[in-house]
Amino acid sequence: MGSNDGGAEILCIGTELLLGSILNGNARWLAEELAALGIPHYRQTVVGDNADRLRQAVLEAAGRCRLLICTGGLGPTPDDLTTATLAEAFGAPLEERAEVLAAITARLAHHGKPLSAGSRKQALLPQGSAVLPNPTGTAPGMIWTPRPGFSLLTFPGVPSEMRAMWRATAAPWLQQQPFSQAVHRSRSLRFWGIGEGNLAERVDDLLALANPTVAPYTGAGDVTLRLTARAADAEAADGLLAPVEQELRRRLGHHCFGADGDCLASVVLQRLRQRGQTLAVAESCTGGGIGAALAAVPGASDVFLGGVIAYANAVKQGLLQVPADTLERHGAVSDPVALAMAEGVRRCTGADWGVAVTGIAGPGGGSSAKPVGLVHIGLSGPQGSSSEGVRFGASRERHWIQILTVGEALNRLRLQISD
Amino acid sequence: MGSNDGGAEILCIGTELLLGSILNGNARWLAEELAALGIPHYRQTVVGDNADRLRQAVLEAAGRCRLLICTGGLGPTPDDLTTATLAEAFGAPLEERAEVLAAITARLAHHGKPLSAGSRKQALLPQGSAVLPNPTGTAPGMIWTPRPGFSLLTFPGVPSEMRAMWRATAAPWLQQQPFSQAVHRSRSLRFWGIGEGNLAERVDDLLALANPTVAPYTGAGDVTLRLTARAADAEAADGLLAPVEQELRRRLGHHCFGADGDCLASVVLQRLRQRGQTLAVAESCTGGGIGAALAAVPGASDVFLGGVIAYANAVKQGLLQVPADTLERHGAVSDPVALAMAEGVRRCTGADWGVAVTGIAGPGGGSSAKPVGLVHIGLSGPQGSSSEGVRFGASRERHWIQILTVGEALNRLRLQISD
Repeated sequence: MGSNDGGAEILCIGTELLLGSILNGNARWLAEELAALGIPHYRQTVVGDNADRLRQAVLEAAGRCRLLICTGGLGPTPDDLTTATLAEAFGAPLEERAEVLAAITARLAHHGKPLSAGSRKQALLPQGSAVLPNPTGTAPGMIWTPRPGFSLLTFPGVPSEMRAMWRATAAPWLQQQPFSQAVHRSRSLRFWGIGEGNLAERVDDLLALANPTVAPYTGAGDVTLRLTARAADAEAADGLLAPVEQELRRRLGHHCFGADGDCLASVVLQRLRQRGQTLAVAESCTGGGIGAALAAVPGASDVFLGGVIAYANAVKQGLLQVPADTLERHGAVSDPVALAMAEGVRRCTGADWGVAVTGIAGPGGGSSAKPVGLVHIGLSGPQGSSSEGVRFGASRERHWIQILTVGEALNRLRLQISD
Repeated sequence: MGSNDGGAEILCIGTELLLGSILNGNARWLAEELAALGIPHYRQTVVGDNADRLRQAVLEAAGRCRLLICTGGLGPTPDDLTTATLAEAFGAPLEERAEVLAAITARLAHHGKPLSAGSRKQALLPQGSAVLPNPTGTAPGMIWTPRPGFSLLTFPGVPSEMRAMWRATAAPWLQQQPFSQAVHRSRSLRFWGIGEGNLAERVDDLLALANPTVAPYTGAGDVTLRLTARAADAEAADGLLAPVEQELRRRLGHHCFGADGDCLASVVLQRLRQRGQTLAVAESCTGGGIGAALAAVPGASDVFLGGVIAYANAVKQGLLQVPADTLERHGAVSDPVALAMAEGVRRCTGADWGVAVTGIAGPGGGSSAKPVGLVHIGLSGPQGSSSEGVRFGASRERHWIQILTVGEALNRLRLQISD
């Protein structure tokens, strides 16, 4: 294995990545998978559809690492030159694989298409490489060890095909190889209502831990702390995670709304389900965003009844029965109107809880008294109603104010129903 | 300039990128900016917060390219080692910059915080480098030519800070340097209702063009064709784009719903605004997603009135006055119910147009007659009402079915109002 370190590298091939046309989601996905397999990974590289630069990048990687994961450039067009370039880089002849050709021909025939020269090219693989089957597309990849101590795997750039191939063949193969040095286990804790800086200050000693590591990431108004432990097996890694999670939850209290796959909507729905209660929304400035967040959760229908998108004042009056003089006296963006909306939507849907938002998402419509970013959030439930104004800041973009409003409204409801 | 090619490279520094915790949005953004400046860019690299690997990657890049854009590792923590590592790699001593230290101290004082050792570190820059000011954060970057023919720029990893620094200082500086070889201009055409494969077949000769290039990208139900022309100046590049755009629009007809920043919601709102008409929505399976898409467009309020989220059947009956026996006879997911919802929301909001959706987003709730992915879309307008069923496929994920339903509903309305 020479002087190569034990790690892996990812090489993504595609001019579209260099043009900035698409995000490199494959690199992120592969990075998470490698971490889960306990394979350390030290570098990611992107090059375009250019044989010289691809060859150079691959030979550099072969001098540095033990495992190279390549994506992209396996298609039928002349731009797709990954397989041929790799073969040439390591001086291996290409050979046509009969079983691959048969699979490609059959797949094309199934769609009523003849075998083109480009498709036939996809059956060529370097001598000595193994086929990495592609169950959902035509282009297979390969598993190849062109030099002792250096292996490479190739995948198409299409995310769904790459993922299917990884799960079916590559991951099981990698687990049997000596690449994995340890098991990594991760746990994410999710927070609302506390900024990353403030949160980091309260747990700065834990952010300095070496194993598990604790890293903060800012999302769309939420903050995630990602704990990652490394150990010889999963049980030992989980044992390292548990006490740190407990301490984080203790210090950050109600700011923590969930873990891993939880979102504010799923947590609110789950809590109301346990209580046997239902929910309706009355939305002005979010235009349906709170409802859409709730409806995105599978099985929402036993709790979420629906509601009213009261974007125009006439709808606030007509469907939610917000009194005209309340609108006139306080303006649409006010606590009395948010309150009347929350109560109105409970009344007209029969829900146990109503959550209402009315605000100024901008960029127009703000004033010095009621600036862009001001949102009033009303809650009405079996024990009564309340409303409060929140200022998200006039410099924020419309879309961002809407996202923060959805989260803040759900979080306020969460805090009311979690005791 | 030795044997270095004329291009740029991007180097993103941060262990979180290698762990797969975040998407590398900075690389994509920088790639687009470099293309717009006409600076060719041949490689992207990601390394972790590790001095040895960072030094190796920088020295390799210095042997290959003329311009290196670095992001990440400029913060105050011990993990942030970009500046010190670069200085060491090129043998330059670090020196404290008084003006940077003063700016950092003032910014911290403004937030009531003292100057920490970590923050003081951020005032250190290699001898001979210029400060790249950071108007929105503490960590400045640098512009440095450590070797003849090789320049590098550093930015923090925080996207908003990086972008502000790029726009204010880096982009103007780069335009004055001899990096730019030509101007690139791009134009995106956006399509709904035609798959990428089908679309590509109809314009395959244009996809093979060299200048402008035409590249298809699949989005969330939509397909984008991105045209990119390269020429000596912007006018000449635009002149290359225009005839290709015209031919694409001619061949693909009504499938093209817009260009560049257009989305289906903005196109629908614009068309209704021209007609002086208003719109309301009645949403079951999307839970408010159509309304949220409309409300995301600034200035939507002169057209979009709101509507009803009729997730539960009781809300369909109560607020939209869908007759109980229609629900019972045809089921909630049916043309008669979609029709009654569209008409009901027009009636209760007074809008000129009503668009309604009712469907099975899954994963539960499907049957052989009404499988997951079946959605009925109703439209009601001044000239009458109609409804039709669409099948998005039972194997799709809930979230995906909801996104496709929002787009399909808006597109059907677009087709009705575009003649």
